[in-house]
Amino acid sequence: MTDSWAAFGADLHIEPAGGGLRSGLTNALREAVRTGRLTPGTRLPSSRTLAVDLGIARNTVADAYAELVAEGWLTARQGSGTRVARRAGVPEPVARGARARRVPRRPVHSLLPGSPDLSAFPRAEWLKAARRALTAAPDAAFGYDDDPRGRIELRSVLADYLARARGVYADPERIVICSGFLHGLTLMGRVLRRRRVRGVAVESYGLDLHRDLLTGAGLRTPCLPVDELGARTGELGGTPGVGAVLLTPAHQFPTGVPLHPDRRAAAVDWARSSGGLVLEDDYDGEFRYDRQPVGALQGLDPERVVYLGTAAKSLAPGLRLAWMVLPEDLVEEVCEAKSGFDRMSGMTDQLTLAEFIGAGAYDRHVRAMRLRYRRRRDQLVDALAERAPDFRVSGIAAGLHVVLELPEGTEQSVVQAATWQGLALDRLSRFRHEDAAPGRDGLVIGYGTPSESGWAGALDALCRVLP
Amino acid sequence: MTDSWAAFGADLHIEPAGGGLRSGLTNALREAVRTGRLTPGTRLPSSRTLAVDLGIARNTVADAYAELVAEGWLTARQGSGTRVARRAGVPEPVARGARARRVPRRPVHSLLPGSPDLSAFPRAEWLKAARRALTAAPDAAFGYDDDPRGRIELRSVLADYLARARGVYADPERIVICSGFLHGLTLMGRVLRRRRVRGVAVESYGLDLHRDLLTGAGLRTPCLPVDELGARTGELGGTPGVGAVLLTPAHQFPTGVPLHPDRRAAAVDWARSSGGLVLEDDYDGEFRYDRQPVGALQGLDPERVVYLGTAAKSLAPGLRLAWMVLPEDLVEEVCEAKSGFDRMSGMTDQLTLAEFIGAGAYDRHVRAMRLRYRRRRDQLVDALAERAPDFRVSGIAAGLHVVLELPEGTEQSVVQAATWQGLALDRLSRFRHEDAAPGRDGLVIGYGTPSESGWAGALDALCRVLP
Repeated sequence: MTDSWAAFGADLHIEPAGGGLRSGLTNALREAVRTGRLTPGTRLPSSRTLAVDLGIARNTVADAYAELVAEGWLTARQGSGTRVARRAGVPEPVARGARARRVPRRPVHSLLPGSPDLSAFPRAEWLKAARRALTAAPDAAFGYDDDPRGRIELRSVLADYLARARGVYADPERIVICSGFLHGLTLMGRVLRRRRVRGVAVESYGLDLHRDLLTGAGLRTPCLPVDELGARTGELGGTPGVGAVLLTPAHQFPTGVPLHPDRRAAAVDWARSSGGLVLEDDYDGEFRYDRQPVGALQGLDPERVVYLGTAAKSLAPGLRLAWMVLPEDLVEEVCEAKSGFDRMSGMTDQLTLAEFIGAGAYDRHVRAMRLRYRRRRDQLVDALAERAPDFRVSGIAAGLHVVLELPEGTEQSVVQAATWQGLALDRLSRFRHEDAAPGRDGLVIGYGTPSESGWAGALDALCRVLP
Repeated sequence: MTDSWAAFGADLHIEPAGGGLRSGLTNALREAVRTGRLTPGTRLPSSRTLAVDLGIARNTVADAYAELVAEGWLTARQGSGTRVARRAGVPEPVARGARARRVPRRPVHSLLPGSPDLSAFPRAEWLKAARRALTAAPDAAFGYDDDPRGRIELRSVLADYLARARGVYADPERIVICSGFLHGLTLMGRVLRRRRVRGVAVESYGLDLHRDLLTGAGLRTPCLPVDELGARTGELGGTPGVGAVLLTPAHQFPTGVPLHPDRRAAAVDWARSSGGLVLEDDYDGEFRYDRQPVGALQGLDPERVVYLGTAAKSLAPGLRLAWMVLPEDLVEEVCEAKSGFDRMSGMTDQLTLAEFIGAGAYDRHVRAMRLRYRRRRDQLVDALAERAPDFRVSGIAAGLHVVLELPEGTEQSVVQAATWQGLALDRLSRFRHEDAAPGRDGLVIGYGTPSESGWAGALDALCRVLP
């Protein structure tokens, strides 16, 4: 928090030249932050001072500052001036697949997987639901909740919704609300450790964040190969010491395969015969485009499958709302594990989501988004067929991303080329388990991520960088 | 989830008699749940069936069910019928001082400390702020937040507010939003352990929940005596292996003493000379009645004091919003510790609170509540002076509770008498550290807890049970 204003003037040699004073100054400052010449927390001179120093109009400086504040490079606060944003040392975001990274050019477009179209959040409908929910809430709802499972209003409508839309055997009594999927997985990690489980099998492709979380809970995470029928659940019996398996049955992440019916049965059979548990990560089960969604695996055996759903893809990650549907005999253990600061989640969003689902707004939103994503999926598949007809596209039936196979040895260079073009892309190998067999080169293309207005540009940028 | 309907009919001998059929039936059922004859999860017969069995009108049964659902004894869901609410085995709530307990009669009044008047939550103002906040929010706010410190909008207004209202040296860059005070304390526990701190001194009166949380993080919690000037911080030097001290300087919980200026200085001196930290729990610092609030201890040395504030008392616990103001060199470590599922909190309430504070609604609400609580405090003190003139009342200058000293050996019997009268009360000894010297008998009377309409009745009930 030291004022390095003197150092600023002496060291930076800001030379706003070429292509307009304002953009020249903006670029120079952005470059200085990116390269670390201006360190996080550094206070910049006032716009007046810098304008005098550089012999330009004060408004030009103020505009450049404002732009960089809007872009997130600087922060401004009344009374404390303009400072370099504090990015250094802050951990990376926990988005499914989305990662902050240092890039040569600030990405203009993102096709990283893991985010829905945030511009589509139904703000007006959400606020309407909030109004109804908070107006009707009993006073006690504003106090300490005495049920670690979360608000009964939300658990009740979720039970109906999940039964109807996802084929989940659900009862409000066995639903536990949590603050995101990671919270649910954390709780399960604690419960499994207390049950003396030593390992949780994970798919050979998935998020390292999930593996790390389980490892952090003291659990091994042996790898279950994924092929064109999904995870090879028939091999579960051959991995000793494993008490649970984490699966993405509706739409394998990131390869996009739905788990084959035989494999679904094999997972449940293994759980029954071994006393194990299946953790079903149903992160985007609502989005299936060419036929009815595949019902949840949980319906096959509600006493052996823990269902984990989330509002992160269907509505917005920023709500931090997810839910577990538990086997009857796990409810108390999970409540017990949820007994620290995480015992209760905020009540306003819980009650609002309950109202939002109950009034049919959730169904309407999911339906509208399904149409939007299907249209994007179709455009993406068409564009790829024209631009790169020899590359296989898979995982197109559902979800918010596809996998595009690339020629051997080109993955890294394509991602790099994209980065230089201002397009953020994820390579397939980033999601590969360290013990997995080597796999094909590919891209994981998240077509849900752009805003509606940014989608066409993102698709164009993708086509430009393909080999 | 077994259907014990047959057992229900056979075992219960429901005999709705006397004082009206409906209330008789309601009482009989409530009693059956309370005594455990009807176990949690048990499904009750349909109102039609029970009406036939008992030979009474179906509406009578339906009304009794509805009443017990409203009271929380039963739950009802379309399609799954009416069941006994699941209370057994659910951990106790984490309210400051408020505890669920089995009582011979369901409490009609509560004077337990730890809750504000929930009926006063400013719903309309909050909804207005939510509308402005969500309308103005950038799309990115609905995504994964890349800053574990929380939304900058909230940190900015908090910095201004805390400086103005609590004398905190605050900068948005060193504020971290958390999901309640317990979350902040959990994060500090992790950081202190990583710094190889072995113990955190705590006041000889306080919440066992806080001690347990620190113990759970692997820290010892030696006890610092509290007297009429507050915690004896001068004795900190004599407790080896202690790297931090948890204090409630504005209004000691629960004794109500503000920490004496000399003791404040001694705490900071100890932290400076030993390299230790002061954790300042400012849970109700806004509520001081007879003069200006005592400024936060943090202002004395922002690099040695961790300030912890919360919206739980000023607005509502159900929001799950609290904040830490950290020494500069702790920011990165706390962000690092906040890297699991708790990395980000829900954005809607953060943005709404930012708008609520920014628009002045928070100030207005706190002012209105301060008047309300002061009036109650005056009425309580007057009533006690009349009803029990020989008993000392302390901690009346601030906060939402007072301590009433009782004659030696009467504490337990007064609380029991209150319980039988339907009045929930907390005894002072419940908050005493296990290593503390034996202390006086007393009651901790939370006068913030009742609703405005319930306050007079609660006060009457209190006067009736005093010795």
